[in-house]
Amino acid sequence: MTPVPRLSLNQATVKYAPLAEALDVTAGAGYEAIGLWREPVAEVGLAAAARLLSASGLRCSTYCRGGFCTMPEGPERRAALDDNRRAIEETATLAAAGAPGSRAVLVLVAGGLPDGSRDLPGARARFADALAELAPAAAAAGVTLAVEPMHPMYCSDRAIVSTLDQALDLAAPFDPAVVGVTVDTFHIWWDPAVLDAIARAGREGRLATYQVCDWRTPLPADVLLSRHYPGDGVIDFGPLTRAVEATGYDGDIEVEIFNADIWAAPPAVVAQRVAESFAEAVAPGLARGGARL
Amino acid sequence: MTPVPRLSLNQATVKYAPLAEALDVTAGAGYEAIGLWREPVAEVGLAAAARLLSASGLRCSTYCRGGFCTMPEGPERRAALDDNRRAIEETATLAAAGAPGSRAVLVLVAGGLPDGSRDLPGARARFADALAELAPAAAAAGVTLAVEPMHPMYCSDRAIVSTLDQALDLAAPFDPAVVGVTVDTFHIWWDPAVLDAIARAGREGRLATYQVCDWRTPLPADVLLSRHYPGDGVIDFGPLTRAVEATGYDGDIEVEIFNADIWAAPPAVVAQRVAESFAEAVAPGLARGGARL
Repeated sequence: MTPVPRLSLNQATVKYAPLAEALDVTAGAGYEAIGLWREPVAEVGLAAAARLLSASGLRCSTYCRGGFCTMPEGPERRAALDDNRRAIEETATLAAAGAPGSRAVLVLVAGGLPDGSRDLPGARARFADALAELAPAAAAAGVTLAVEPMHPMYCSDRAIVSTLDQALDLAAPFDPAVVGVTVDTFHIWWDPAVLDAIARAGREGRLATYQVCDWRTPLPADVLLSRHYPGDGVIDFGPLTRAVEATGYDGDIEVEIFNADIWAAPPAVVAQRVAESFAEAVAPGLARGGARL
Repeated sequence: MTPVPRLSLNQATVKYAPLAEALDVTAGAGYEAIGLWREPVAEVGLAAAARLLSASGLRCSTYCRGGFCTMPEGPERRAALDDNRRAIEETATLAAAGAPGSRAVLVLVAGGLPDGSRDLPGARARFADALAELAPAAAAAGVTLAVEPMHPMYCSDRAIVSTLDQALDLAAPFDPAVVGVTVDTFHIWWDPAVLDAIARAGREGRLATYQVCDWRTPLPADVLLSRHYPGDGVIDFGPLTRAVEATGYDGDIEVEIFNADIWAAPPAVVAQRVAESFAEAVAPGLARGGARL
């Protein structure tokens, strides 16, 4: 089947495909957009990656990912911030190389507690400081930093931003064009305040990207890999998707799945299955069935 | 070492000890209080359990647990509500049999999504309905139902109540003496709003029990068993405990740990280790070092 026009395949869903193959598979399956990741871009180099993306004819929906800057001041923190500045430049380059409608959005995962630390407010404050330090670079590059609240089960070791409201609070001091938020169903579906928070993201002009995948239990031994095709779990995509649509968000919507079984499948099969699952579970909540304006 | 006077050993921490052994171990280790569970009470029968508890000289700090009533109307729901009514009666009996200072508090775990359902608001509404149905029985028995927000990673299959604010919203329609909340560090430590929510629980008179254990990653394959001795993980017990103290809560504080390694250790060793870890990680946050008024 032809994917819904606004559907973007996040590259992590076909993790083991090198960039050229991921682009081929995505374009070959009829997608119009892809969400890229830094590691496979680095494998070929930024300039080559930009040429490959351009040749693919695909839009770039987001670039994953920056962040991981909750550590205290010192060389490690400086290196992390420098790396984020490079990620900002890469985001701008790739968005310019992608087809019209590409978005210069860098997804930010905050990072967890530094080793040995129990100071959660401190880690949160240092992430807020990092945003302040990175915002000028993002503004200069025309890039939106999309702070991603992650499921609270990752709070200690991956992301001290756990709710969409918290992400919006962190973004509040900045221009919405510079610091926005990532709405990922897997991370926030459980939140009793989620629909209000999505509406707030819309009011505040900060909904930078919408990512979907499903939640199912039992969780696998590595809880990072517990994401599923839309429709294979318990998330009700209708209310969440309609809430996102109601904000006026009209960008691409990524399916981003970390799942060992899905990674083991042929990328072309995965791309097809993503398109089918999205059409069935998510697209009905979209205006115009997911057609672009 | 002698346990801090307000420290209570939740029986689940020594899961494989039958009731008589759990009481012996707890009293023998110098504790003044224990939190009981329904299954080991049922093994000996309620009357015998009450006699054993009375003979132990221990306070009963809570009774675990009721709830699990998110299913739609029908025989299964009726059976669950009837079972909750029995749990309420058992709570009253055990609190009366325990030493002075025992609390008639029944911890309620809401339950997850019914099999095959994706209707989270519906499940939440049905749990609210169950509270309305159970509140008169609890009031008549002098029992407080303590709604427990559980970590969002359990939202789909165990508890559709994920934050302390959500628990307080659910409790709001009822007399605080009848419907309160459980504050368990493991479940809510990550919540950016947790300190405000604890203060709110105090203002609203609903903080029915305080339970502590620690969070550490990587999570074990069965994420239900990922609880640790206080101090063995990343939770900063100081701010949470001081926030609970600031509400005026002066009851016992339970250590409740589900952990396969801890369950495999001799109960007397576990009781001792709990007392030590609590004294080190939690008691410094308590008024009077955990002495009772």
